[in-house]
Amino acid sequence: MSHEVVVIEGDGIGREVVPAAVEVLEALPVDFEFVEADAGDATKEATGEALPAETYDLAADADATLFGAAGETAADVILPLREAVDSFVNVRPARAYPGVDALRPETDVVFLRENTEGVYAGHEDRLSDDLSTLTRVVTSSASRELAEYACEFVADGRGPAGNPDEGFTVAHKANVMRETDGLFREEVLAVAEERGVDADEELMDAFATKLPLDPTQYGVIVCPNLAGDVLSDLAAGLVGGLGLLPSANVGHDNALFEPVHGTAPDIAGEGVANPTAAILSAAMLLEYLGHVEEGQRVRDAVEGVLSDGPRTGDLSGSATTDEVTAAIVDRL
Amino acid sequence: MSHEVVVIEGDGIGREVVPAAVEVLEALPVDFEFVEADAGDATKEATGEALPAETYDLAADADATLFGAAGETAADVILPLREAVDSFVNVRPARAYPGVDALRPETDVVFLRENTEGVYAGHEDRLSDDLSTLTRVVTSSASRELAEYACEFVADGRGPAGNPDEGFTVAHKANVMRETDGLFREEVLAVAEERGVDADEELMDAFATKLPLDPTQYGVIVCPNLAGDVLSDLAAGLVGGLGLLPSANVGHDNALFEPVHGTAPDIAGEGVANPTAAILSAAMLLEYLGHVEEGQRVRDAVEGVLSDGPRTGDLSGSATTDEVTAAIVDRL
Ligand SMILES: CC(C)[C@H](C(=O)O)[C@@H](O)C(=O)O
Ligand SMILES: CC(C)[C@H](C(=O)O)[C@@H](O)C(=O)O
Repeated sequence: MSHEVVVIEGDGIGREVVPAAVEVLEALPVDFEFVEADAGDATKEATGEALPAETYDLAADADATLFGAAGETAADVILPLREAVDSFVNVRPARAYPGVDALRPETDVVFLRENTEGVYAGHEDRLSDDLSTLTRVVTSSASRELAEYACEFVADGRGPAGNPDEGFTVAHKANVMRETDGLFREEVLAVAEERGVDADEELMDAFATKLPLDPTQYGVIVCPNLAGDVLSDLAAGLVGGLGLLPSANVGHDNALFEPVHGTAPDIAGEGVANPTAAILSAAMLLEYLGHVEEGQRVRDAVEGVLSDGPRTGDLSGSATTDEVTAAIVDRL
Repeated sequence: MSHEVVVIEGDGIGREVVPAAVEVLEALPVDFEFVEADAGDATKEATGEALPAETYDLAADADATLFGAAGETAADVILPLREAVDSFVNVRPARAYPGVDALRPETDVVFLRENTEGVYAGHEDRLSDDLSTLTRVVTSSASRELAEYACEFVADGRGPAGNPDEGFTVAHKANVMRETDGLFREEVLAVAEERGVDADEELMDAFATKLPLDPTQYGVIVCPNLAGDVLSDLAAGLVGGLGLLPSANVGHDNALFEPVHGTAPDIAGEGVANPTAAILSAAMLLEYLGHVEEGQRVRDAVEGVLSDGPRTGDLSGSATTDEVTAAIVDRL
């Protein structure tokens, strides 16, 4: 069976790292049909739309999508694409790798970020010259669905190695957002209890202090949308930046995979971008499509290259994107 | 002229560190009239109310208030108290001190957090079994007032030493919250431009990655309410925790000063809490009341003790709260 995968390079280094990830996928004994589609700043310039309806529809109908990055139009591209694949959870692992400079090399966490609501579902109004409002939305159903996913995730052992108690931590701000985050917190903890999964909780501000002080306290962290955005980016700062971080937007029978980094305009076009985050996103895509062993082969190859292979400039090396990709393909 | 200062110890170590701060204030040649008032968990247990109307009124009518911490009732106490003193900005310096263990010892930043709106002004509703909403509020007037304060703050040289460009950074999420954070961003940047102050901007998620990677890029950071809450707590994690961080809630002719830390139930009652954050909050109170030189004396004494005086357990010492306080008073 061949998997139809939509490939959206986007802008900047997306055009370099996505082809690298496709090269890795093509080197494996898995049947893919890749369909290229456009989105991003350049697409907007050319067509007037950052995310053409055709791209949206292709992503919606595919088995999975691999996305690179978009520039100024990032929100106009990625938010509708997450909707196109019907994604309810954004899976964001953040770990340091041996030999890679990191502020907290012992960091090994996975964020499970709610991917449909919070301020992102926000209806906004400019009510007067002075006053603007945003309606933040939290539903019991989305909170429970995320929690069910989190329970399966930890039960399947997909949390980081040594995940404390095989459980998870809910991070929220229910002491201020009593109804909305209160509902989120209550439902997530209730599902954990029903499923017999250990869950503890942390206020998101306290979490932001404690994660840098000692990341080993945490394993899997379940958060509302914006909290997951900010706290997972904080974790990126502890493992040495965004260059190594993949992510998955998982839906009911579709998913989209993307490196957490952006378009890196300072180095775009030079062929020196680090393809690791895109390649690790491809590993998540493989696992999502049931090719768990192949996903692991990709991870192992990436780790091998990170520990003693060529490196790009962000990791103090001088290799090109192609050299790093070739080294990873060599080790598969 | 004597200053009327309301003193609210609150719960836990608030009862130990606030008296320490008062002792420091009493050792200075400044006339205070201290008025004690109650709030917090114990007050709620005794009276049914975490924040009695009498305490609210005292804070509202005083020249300034010194607050410790509250336990479970923290939000019920501190949010109305900020309103009582009509505070529009929460000033949160975060710096590391020589000799104090810190993940990023070079951190020296000041957050100016909007203190009245955002999700904190949120009107919440449970619209159905499934659905809850919160109305997030951003006004042009509050954004401009914060920005005016920020411009004066940097112009007066109150930013950290070496504050890049004597300007500030606005951190926001206007790519998603386009109307609300869009308005905040626009007004803050407009005021900076009018005042000839350099201002740049950062998405709050990108800021959360970049601050741990290199805190020296930042000096003064201007944020919406919740962003300021989370990002300043992140900075606390980089300087070694909350034990050293003071804060000021500044209003039009009133203000409230509080350590950023909580009640620390694990050590409360043992007389071993670190009084530094409360004493530095007292230094901010002195400066607010016009006693800039005395504020500096307190800071110098604190720094001296941190560098070669007795230390509490959180800083790997074994001194008591009283011993540290006495050492600080000795150096005034
Ligand atoms: C580009 C932006 C809309 C997006 C988000 O906020 O979700 C990004 O920060 C991310 O985390 O993927
Ligand atoms: C206790 C809580 C309501 C408060 C806040 O969120 O403002 C606290 O975290 C703080 O930052 O002072």
